[in-house]
Amino acid sequence: MKRKRIGVLLSGCGVMDGSEIHEATLTLYFLDKQGADILCMAPDKDQADVVNHVSGNATGEKRSILNEAARIARGKIVDINTVKADELDGIILPGGFGAAKNLCTFAFDGAECRVDEGVARLLREMHDRNKPIGALCIAPAVLARLFGAGVSPELTIGNDAGTAAALEKMGARHKTANTDEIVVDIKNKIVTTPCYMTAQSIKEVGAGAEKLVSKILDLAG
Amino acid sequence: MKRKRIGVLLSGCGVMDGSEIHEATLTLYFLDKQGADILCMAPDKDQADVVNHVSGNATGEKRSILNEAARIARGKIVDINTVKADELDGIILPGGFGAAKNLCTFAFDGAECRVDEGVARLLREMHDRNKPIGALCIAPAVLARLFGAGVSPELTIGNDAGTAAALEKMGARHKTANTDEIVVDIKNKIVTTPCYMTAQSIKEVGAGAEKLVSKILDLAG
Repeated sequence: MKRKRIGVLLSGCGVMDGSEIHEATLTLYFLDKQGADILCMAPDKDQADVVNHVSGNATGEKRSILNEAARIARGKIVDINTVKADELDGIILPGGFGAAKNLCTFAFDGAECRVDEGVARLLREMHDRNKPIGALCIAPAVLARLFGAGVSPELTIGNDAGTAAALEKMGARHKTANTDEIVVDIKNKIVTTPCYMTAQSIKEVGAGAEKLVSKILDLAG
Repeated sequence: MKRKRIGVLLSGCGVMDGSEIHEATLTLYFLDKQGADILCMAPDKDQADVVNHVSGNATGEKRSILNEAARIARGKIVDINTVKADELDGIILPGGFGAAKNLCTFAFDGAECRVDEGVARLLREMHDRNKPIGALCIAPAVLARLFGAGVSPELTIGNDAGTAAALEKMGARHKTANTDEIVVDIKNKIVTTPCYMTAQSIKEVGAGAEKLVSKILDLAG
């Protein structure tokens, strides 16, 4: 059987200003374990901010989303603007504040957020070609913004009422879920799971990520 | 049964100048999955260098080992100088160039390397108390330097002849191992595995890390 090729869309390196490292790494781990080929990608522009992960304070530094995401990808990463949907059988967005600061502006603008142009272009292409899209943790906010007003996808970000309300304001239908559950919108081929929106520790993130990866590969035809 | 508390000694965040992220994350994942409590720690000083993980070139920036390692630890991390061996049942050192640049100077000085004072103090305390020490990838270089001239531990860094020779020059006994194997020096309670010194992909790193974690917990009394 032909190996499936799954994109992993990163947003930096670290939960407070980039991709959540455990969610991203465990996504890569389960993709590899389940026999998928992987293409890591990120926007090639500056992060919205850089946060000291001990103090939680912004540092004022400039860092590149792509260069920092390359730490998770061990250098094997490309600019999202070079990726075509035809190259991929599916795509997964790990969470972390980077998904809500660098892939879109949800962390700053809530339901009025904008999505990065390159991210919007590729995700719309994937959806138009009926290819599966997975999103962990807060990353479903990107999908709510892109697809909410059109196809009104069913999504989860766990059980946080305020965040769920913002996703619904963008037109998505929110479904509460536990850490070890995935929510599958089969019509739109969108799969989501709460990960660190609800998880108490890394093994729980693994449980959700493993299920999500498995379902994305199922749906990747 | 009382939960065991295992230290994870990080050296930054990213394979080229810090902790290898997959090795560190999968160590945390298997520790949590196997029921251990975790204490992440790192030296509180500047990294030896900062490397752009797309180009592989040094950037000239300054970054703190502790603050960058906190990205992997999601902020739950302490300065190694505050940690006593009595608080821990075992300790694990993930690999990445940070182990050979920031925990010791092996990447620059080879067999003549020096080990960070705080790292040396804690690892000697652990060994003196007969508590298990695990090391992945290139991190066994730290143990070769610290313990080679004394107890001559048996270690592996995989199958790289030049690196193995340098470890033997420091007094360790090197044993060639495959990616999915661990080498156990039962007398010294030192467990090592090659990970990305030989691994072709992240699932292979998982296989070695899972076995090493399991053995460390066995040996942790």
